[in-house]
Amino acid sequence: MKLSFSPASPFARKVRIAAIELGLIDQIEFFAAAVTPGQPNAEYSEINPVKKLPALILSNGEVIVDSYVIAEYLDELAGGGKLIPATGPDRWRVKSDHSMLQGMLDSMLLCRYEKLVRPEALRWQAWSDDHWNRAWTGMAHFERDAAALSRPLDIAQIALTCVLGYADFRFADCGWRKAYPKLDAFHEKMLARPSVQISLPPPA
Amino acid sequence: MKLSFSPASPFARKVRIAAIELGLIDQIEFFAAAVTPGQPNAEYSEINPVKKLPALILSNGEVIVDSYVIAEYLDELAGGGKLIPATGPDRWRVKSDHSMLQGMLDSMLLCRYEKLVRPEALRWQAWSDDHWNRAWTGMAHFERDAAALSRPLDIAQIALTCVLGYADFRFADCGWRKAYPKLDAFHEKMLARPSVQISLPPPA
Repeated sequence: MKLSFSPASPFARKVRIAAIELGLIDQIEFFAAAVTPGQPNAEYSEINPVKKLPALILSNGEVIVDSYVIAEYLDELAGGGKLIPATGPDRWRVKSDHSMLQGMLDSMLLCRYEKLVRPEALRWQAWSDDHWNRAWTGMAHFERDAAALSRPLDIAQIALTCVLGYADFRFADCGWRKAYPKLDAFHEKMLARPSVQISLPPPA
Repeated sequence: MKLSFSPASPFARKVRIAAIELGLIDQIEFFAAAVTPGQPNAEYSEINPVKKLPALILSNGEVIVDSYVIAEYLDELAGGGKLIPATGPDRWRVKSDHSMLQGMLDSMLLCRYEKLVRPEALRWQAWSDDHWNRAWTGMAHFERDAAALSRPLDIAQIALTCVLGYADFRFADCGWRKAYPKLDAFHEKMLARPSVQISLPPPA
């Protein structure tokens, strides 16, 4: 299998951590793809029209998107019910938590694009404020959610780790550790995993 | 169950169509929520920090997001394997197609916000062009995918219907019917369903 990848993408990082934790990383070959907004990449658009990372290309040529469906696919490949509970009360909790975290990442990337990719004269503060507020309010939500932070490892916890790692990477001064001490403790615990360590984003 | 809803949201429309097709619509009460970018909505952020429609509130108070996970939840409630194949070769095809369509809708909403919500002096053409190209390239992808257009009803087909309906609603002059005759025929076929008719967006 081939996975489109960038070490800066929190969505690709999530799949990388999941693949390591599921014991499937040796079956996946990474390839680089540039998806900067405002810059066409016709070759990659052939693979994934929505020009996002990551996409998984199977040996039969079929393409699977997005990071969540790829994680589900890998989970099933590893036997099922590993990172996404197959049944029970945590099943919908984990899935919904993951979607919320996915939305937080989307908003953080929109902030990043607004502040660093868009020409400076065209930036709109209310847009950045709104999207940063979604990420920040989301962090507050998980700070209050002791169950989400203490379940056995699941895809939502991996996504939360990627949210916090992306905050360090692109919003180093945002102060999430001070504001959210329980998320800080959770993140420290996650950093003990080699999958989380090895996938840390590069120095900004 | 309560669902946050707006008749203009293609994501909420997708869940509405799914709920009707699954025979669950009578169990769902809609409530309105405003999620305009740049305008805070603290009350709704309490329900869904990422401030997106739709969110499903269960009778025990638990909240499920996003539209895909809600559709999965309703599908399971209806017995499972109805709109998302539980097994077999179409399972990952449908899931991946749905994710691609979700990304197309995200890009179409970003175009809409860029062109109509953002102050005029702050608009960036390359951003709109890039995101419109994602939606347009995505339509071309499905125009070529005869299998996706002819499977038994599934959540990807419902999402594709919502993409095309949103194109009519917000980008009425884009010319998708001329460019993509097979999507036009697919859309006509879908319009025969009362669920699709009743959920058409209001006049723009």
